[in-house]
Amino acid sequence: MAPGIDIEISEVGPRDGLQSIDRIMPLEAKKAWVAAEAAAGVPEIEVGSFVPAKILPQLADTAELVGFAKSIPNLTVAVLVPNFRGAENAVKAGADKITIPLSVSETHSLKNVRRTHAQMLDEVSRIVELINSLPASERPVFEGGLSTAFGCTLEGPIAEDVVVRLAEALMERGCSEVGLSDTTGYANPGQVKRLTKAVKAAVGDDKLTGLHLHNTRGVGLANVMAALEVGITTLDASLGGIGGCPFAPGASGNIVTEDLVYMLDSMGLKTGIDLERLLAVRSIVEEALPGEPLYGFTPDAGLPKGYPHGYLPAA
Amino acid sequence: MAPGIDIEISEVGPRDGLQSIDRIMPLEAKKAWVAAEAAAGVPEIEVGSFVPAKILPQLADTAELVGFAKSIPNLTVAVLVPNFRGAENAVKAGADKITIPLSVSETHSLKNVRRTHAQMLDEVSRIVELINSLPASERPVFEGGLSTAFGCTLEGPIAEDVVVRLAEALMERGCSEVGLSDTTGYANPGQVKRLTKAVKAAVGDDKLTGLHLHNTRGVGLANVMAALEVGITTLDASLGGIGGCPFAPGASGNIVTEDLVYMLDSMGLKTGIDLERLLAVRSIVEEALPGEPLYGFTPDAGLPKGYPHGYLPAA
Repeated sequence: MAPGIDIEISEVGPRDGLQSIDRIMPLEAKKAWVAAEAAAGVPEIEVGSFVPAKILPQLADTAELVGFAKSIPNLTVAVLVPNFRGAENAVKAGADKITIPLSVSETHSLKNVRRTHAQMLDEVSRIVELINSLPASERPVFEGGLSTAFGCTLEGPIAEDVVVRLAEALMERGCSEVGLSDTTGYANPGQVKRLTKAVKAAVGDDKLTGLHLHNTRGVGLANVMAALEVGITTLDASLGGIGGCPFAPGASGNIVTEDLVYMLDSMGLKTGIDLERLLAVRSIVEEALPGEPLYGFTPDAGLPKGYPHGYLPAA
Repeated sequence: MAPGIDIEISEVGPRDGLQSIDRIMPLEAKKAWVAAEAAAGVPEIEVGSFVPAKILPQLADTAELVGFAKSIPNLTVAVLVPNFRGAENAVKAGADKITIPLSVSETHSLKNVRRTHAQMLDEVSRIVELINSLPASERPVFEGGLSTAFGCTLEGPIAEDVVVRLAEALMERGCSEVGLSDTTGYANPGQVKRLTKAVKAAVGDDKLTGLHLHNTRGVGLANVMAALEVGITTLDASLGGIGGCPFAPGASGNIVTEDLVYMLDSMGLKTGIDLERLLAVRSIVEEALPGEPLYGFTPDAGLPKGYPHGYLPAA
């Protein structure tokens, strides 16, 4: 984490958002979006996913976007990979951080990527081998992302000890760190605290620092509050809340980056992000995807009078 | 608070919601709404406001609605009053709880009710005298509600010591309790904790138990999380999030009762409310006010598979 920052925001809109939208955003618009968010102070951006273009044509230009994003100083360029092949491409492109999702719900894993937990863990081992073959200075951070960790639309409740066991397995296979994803928007604040504590206890406090939370049932920022209390320091969010499987108009999936930054900022927690500049980035997405709904309360309501002076804690 | 309940929800939709909507909901629909929410387990409903009918014709039938609501067992029937005259009518109608708003921003108070703090406090004293003239068993709870406590659209930041001082003044004048209102949607979780603690320290832990929070900038439920941590046990909310000065479509003002109950429920905090029955109440409002936007994420997304089993804490 950069010095002077309390909480690191990882913008996932260009990956998680755009993969949920049928239209393809032109590469130039993606570059403008990534550049503008980085200029607003966003320290990490997940720019795409290395999946076959026939599955997600929206993200077919991920390698080029990684190349562009790498030219921006002080930006961590993150990508998602579903398998070893994807990781090879991510390494070739020069990504700083690679995340592989492992669905804690094996039913979901089989349906989504047609692989069991054991098969996914073998894939993880192959990726670790690839990364370890690189010179130390060129090795990306490799995160194992536990999806459906808070519940599954197919299986329903997910046993917390299965999440813990898979987190341990990912670390044993050689991941740098693990993350927890509320893929389905099932998480509640009590559960966020319990599960984060349990996984941290199993793999080490510094090996689980980030959560990917959704706002599907309106409790996204309440879950963030719970996460902060148990030492989470990296939070995923999406500009305008795009992506993350929205169910209906008005019901965003991902946490809205603008609202998250507003909340942290108003509490005096430093994100390094200039909120007014961040709000201005929306126009890039609006122009590139006309008519696409963007969510967020802060953009509609505007900033409080005198913001943020007077709202910050005294010390 | 009723036995077996951890958190008391006070539904303010029939007052705070309907006063923000130009159309007048027929009395029969209001009765159906109040009855259905009470039947779903909502323990307290603010059914209206005793203001002149020419100012708020939407609430002109408050006395009749209080009479009806009083016939429902185990329901606390709350009303708002702007002044002594309103309190007289509230007492006559038999309200269980009367709240008078006192705006911490004197600029706002002068603009809104054309009264200084001193004039408002004198009004409070007259109301206390009226209440104390009643037989003890007939005295309503009398709350002083500190509005704009977290910031004002006219004055900007509000000094916390002014909030504390006015809370003390309300108690000295004889209020039963005080409440804090985030009238403008300016509150953040850190501020909610600080201000609640400061006021509790000044007036007594049991004299500040309720907050009226908004979701204007999307942080309403995060503010609830902060409130729970400092011992708040009563929370205002509005069905479908209606009212509370929404700024724009999609940006609700009040906290959505359905999302609040979902969050508390999923954390294992007992509200006494049956969420599925509560969700069904929306249709009454939808039919009575066709086309009126109702907010809320949980109503759109639906309840998680297997809910709430498996999500509750073990103990």
